[in-house]
Amino acid sequence: MEQATPTTATPIRFETHPDRYIHWRLEIEPPLARLVMDVDEEKAQRPGYPLKLNSYDLGVDIELADAVQRLRFEHPEVRAVVVTSGKDRVFCSGANIYMLGSSTHAFKVNFCKFTNETRLSMEDASAHSGLKFLAAVNGACAGGGYELALACDHILLVDDASSAVSLPEVPLLGVLPGTGGLTRVVDKRKVRRDLADAFSSLGEGVKGKRAVQWRLVDETVPLSKFAARVPEKAKELAAAAPARNAPGVELKPLEGKYTKDGIEHRYVTLKVDAGARVAHLTMKGPDAGELKDAAGMRKKGSDLWALRAFRELDDVLLDLRFNRPEVGVVVLQTRGDAANVLAADQALLANKEDWFAAEVLHLMRRVLKRLDLTARTFYAVIDQGSCFAGSLMELALAADRSYMLAANDGPKIALSAMNDGPLPMSNGLSRFETRFLAGKPEIPRDQPMDGDEALEKGLVTFSPDEIDWEDEVRLAIEERASLSPDALTGMEANLRFAGPETMETKIFGRLSAWQNWIFQRPNAVGEKGALTLYGKPERARFTWTRT
Amino acid sequence: MEQATPTTATPIRFETHPDRYIHWRLEIEPPLARLVMDVDEEKAQRPGYPLKLNSYDLGVDIELADAVQRLRFEHPEVRAVVVTSGKDRVFCSGANIYMLGSSTHAFKVNFCKFTNETRLSMEDASAHSGLKFLAAVNGACAGGGYELALACDHILLVDDASSAVSLPEVPLLGVLPGTGGLTRVVDKRKVRRDLADAFSSLGEGVKGKRAVQWRLVDETVPLSKFAARVPEKAKELAAAAPARNAPGVELKPLEGKYTKDGIEHRYVTLKVDAGARVAHLTMKGPDAGELKDAAGMRKKGSDLWALRAFRELDDVLLDLRFNRPEVGVVVLQTRGDAANVLAADQALLANKEDWFAAEVLHLMRRVLKRLDLTARTFYAVIDQGSCFAGSLMELALAADRSYMLAANDGPKIALSAMNDGPLPMSNGLSRFETRFLAGKPEIPRDQPMDGDEALEKGLVTFSPDEIDWEDEVRLAIEERASLSPDALTGMEANLRFAGPETMETKIFGRLSAWQNWIFQRPNAVGEKGALTLYGKPERARFTWTRT
Repeated sequence: MEQATPTTATPIRFETHPDRYIHWRLEIEPPLARLVMDVDEEKAQRPGYPLKLNSYDLGVDIELADAVQRLRFEHPEVRAVVVTSGKDRVFCSGANIYMLGSSTHAFKVNFCKFTNETRLSMEDASAHSGLKFLAAVNGACAGGGYELALACDHILLVDDASSAVSLPEVPLLGVLPGTGGLTRVVDKRKVRRDLADAFSSLGEGVKGKRAVQWRLVDETVPLSKFAARVPEKAKELAAAAPARNAPGVELKPLEGKYTKDGIEHRYVTLKVDAGARVAHLTMKGPDAGELKDAAGMRKKGSDLWALRAFRELDDVLLDLRFNRPEVGVVVLQTRGDAANVLAADQALLANKEDWFAAEVLHLMRRVLKRLDLTARTFYAVIDQGSCFAGSLMELALAADRSYMLAANDGPKIALSAMNDGPLPMSNGLSRFETRFLAGKPEIPRDQPMDGDEALEKGLVTFSPDEIDWEDEVRLAIEERASLSPDALTGMEANLRFAGPETMETKIFGRLSAWQNWIFQRPNAVGEKGALTLYGKPERARFTWTRT
Repeated sequence: MEQATPTTATPIRFETHPDRYIHWRLEIEPPLARLVMDVDEEKAQRPGYPLKLNSYDLGVDIELADAVQRLRFEHPEVRAVVVTSGKDRVFCSGANIYMLGSSTHAFKVNFCKFTNETRLSMEDASAHSGLKFLAAVNGACAGGGYELALACDHILLVDDASSAVSLPEVPLLGVLPGTGGLTRVVDKRKVRRDLADAFSSLGEGVKGKRAVQWRLVDETVPLSKFAARVPEKAKELAAAAPARNAPGVELKPLEGKYTKDGIEHRYVTLKVDAGARVAHLTMKGPDAGELKDAAGMRKKGSDLWALRAFRELDDVLLDLRFNRPEVGVVVLQTRGDAANVLAADQALLANKEDWFAAEVLHLMRRVLKRLDLTARTFYAVIDQGSCFAGSLMELALAADRSYMLAANDGPKIALSAMNDGPLPMSNGLSRFETRFLAGKPEIPRDQPMDGDEALEKGLVTFSPDEIDWEDEVRLAIEERASLSPDALTGMEANLRFAGPETMETKIFGRLSAWQNWIFQRPNAVGEKGALTLYGKPERARFTWTRT
């Protein structure tokens, strides 16, 4: 049975700061940083499961995601990060099983999705910001712990006759290593599929030379040499990364106002109509006169419109996922002056060789990917007063559908260079390319278009006139909110990612879908399921039917 | 709750013949054929659901799969096939909902997989044999009916003010169009994702000009011109296809012996140990002196080893999927002389410009894909007397793991040109390439290798010596058979398809996985689920939580 969503639960917040970290220590020694996992087992996100053996829950992962993001903005001088454990003989034992076993299906799925996004954010930092990660595996490294190591550029395993890497989910829990593990093993590390099979069904994992031979880790060193080898290798990684100078830009708190009915940030607001299961997400464009030069932008820092607005959007998306599970349809709206959006975009693109402008663009890209991967229907409603241009036009292109008012002196949309590549989806294509796989229409950039033209060019789905507008939009939202939420999730997950697949889309599309299926199966979560009975004396009882 | 497998059910057989078709008529008028769907509603595969409105069940699809296969072998002179309906005002209304609603989860999943393979076999015939398909949509075309049309090269829709194409699964049933529909709409036909979204949530579908504008069909014609346009367009498709001369090669019945404990075919046998949930599948190589020239091979026809042996393998795989759902591990073995296998392979490759030899190779490719997509563990056991060479080495490369005895005068394996491209997986790569994504080892072709060498080259997973052999293989099988069947299915679905994704792998990996998840959700199959309540006065009641 589906567990009820604990509506009395305290809402989960995603903002944190190194000063408040409970489970991680972030130590900066340029060009290196050390990210030390030292989970406080008493401080789980909710009661009921101690976080033993450096196991993690969402609270632990929120800190990791924050640390990776802050390193990129606040410590540009850091070029390599040592990810290690503050515990003896254990690196990380993965996601906490009792937490998983006591979570609702929806929470499990969203927890896995967030942890996948966090691991991908490490790989994103490596690929786009030259920030390299060294997994200094100083002890047992199991399940999600190995998946954390897999997200690093180099895995150094201590060879102490006991420390092993393992993915024991299949044999011990009857579920998958769901944080990208299986995909990363064969697609990123290119482990041979039969060895990956043997490895993933071996509860005790693989250690020492065999782990290197099987390509599961890059290197093993004896315990006696481990302490010296870690900084040596980290410096080597740092030296290969392009240098960046301090000072960084502080990511100041967003200070949003959160209520039962929504969120108010400076540029992004969310208003929830709980009865209708609809939320209105409105993003404001910048004021006139956003800064145009790199130094000025850095000085404005986290108050720069693009950085602040997209951080706010990220916060709202995560709030929707975790705190408002019954909202089915999210209406995307914008308010402001399209010319100001285009000018702000243009300033960023003109300065993209500057590390800070580049980081802002990367953050916008990551947040828009988070939107693509959020299992809610998004309808863009392009009405009077809106400013769907350039980076904000991405909201409309990311939406499952868009409705644009066609009227004299009605709203206008505009494409810009921002829609042509700087903000690709997980599939590697821009949203514009993904939309027009059959052939791209000729559309001038930076030119406003009205509803009729936008419809004709294929940029919006429907463009009702003033007579039909209100009813058509209202009915479309009502109809959507009445459909099976599961069928919609599956449909959107398939239609949004037309075109090529990448490691990233394989993780979210293939691996996660199988994991979601298994997370629903009696063999895992039934009364006698392996996940349910983990840690209890009783053994799991399986229905043997293969599908 | 999981429904029990109806063990008393009559086993399903997959061999049929046009003379025995119940639901289809195959009419040959070279260079055209007509494949007319005219479902007998009283003759469903099992009692309980009349097949109204040209809806289909597995029995209907088995005939379609047979027809497509026979056209390629028995009617090489046919170059285009008109797929149409023998009913008035309805082309096909898709998979029968009452059949789905009353099926076990495992049956639903396997039914969808088989129908997907059948649709892909049509596209395969088009791509590889130049056999073109015209969907002559003479009435309502809904769900799986539209998915059938999507598998054709050209969709011609009658414009009679009522006939529409539709994918009504999401709004009406709370499940996905699961026979490749969503993927084909955006990836094959390149329908814009927002239009695909609107289309897939519209119960009544899209008709007339809009269906063309949205790229859902290629052409509409008024009813008055439909009868003339169909053969005209079909002849155009046939004219564009490379000509082939009759006579064809008859696919004679396999005449296997089926018992509770297994199957005996001429070259392939299956022995089931039901208590251990293990089956032994053994494939015999050819005798010496297989024919080397195209004319001789055609004369030998369906008694040619490669054709017969792989048809038998196909039959056994389908039997495993549908009739033996509790078998978890399939041990793949071979018996015979490797030199004979290599000679038979070589004869086929040397004559691949001949249509018949080419068709045999295409069939081998399709059967091996069926193996890759069968949700059972495959372990290749390479022991004394085996002949894992060339095409039969593909069995070992397709297996999740392989165990090879290392001994003096022990078994040998060999690669040949057959492993380098003629038999690609669904991901477009050979099994050899998929295995060695990190870099291919240098391995001479057509050279026998013993267990030690095979292990060193990475061609087998483990190579125990004579002392360990029996225990190691036995334990490996026992251990595997003890693991959660769901977790194994998910793990294998991820590890087998390393590397690139194609439309085909997206259908099986992404779309099917989401559909399997939904097929397990209370919103679809619970007491108040949409699939359960379809056709009843009561409306579905959803749990609104989004995941």
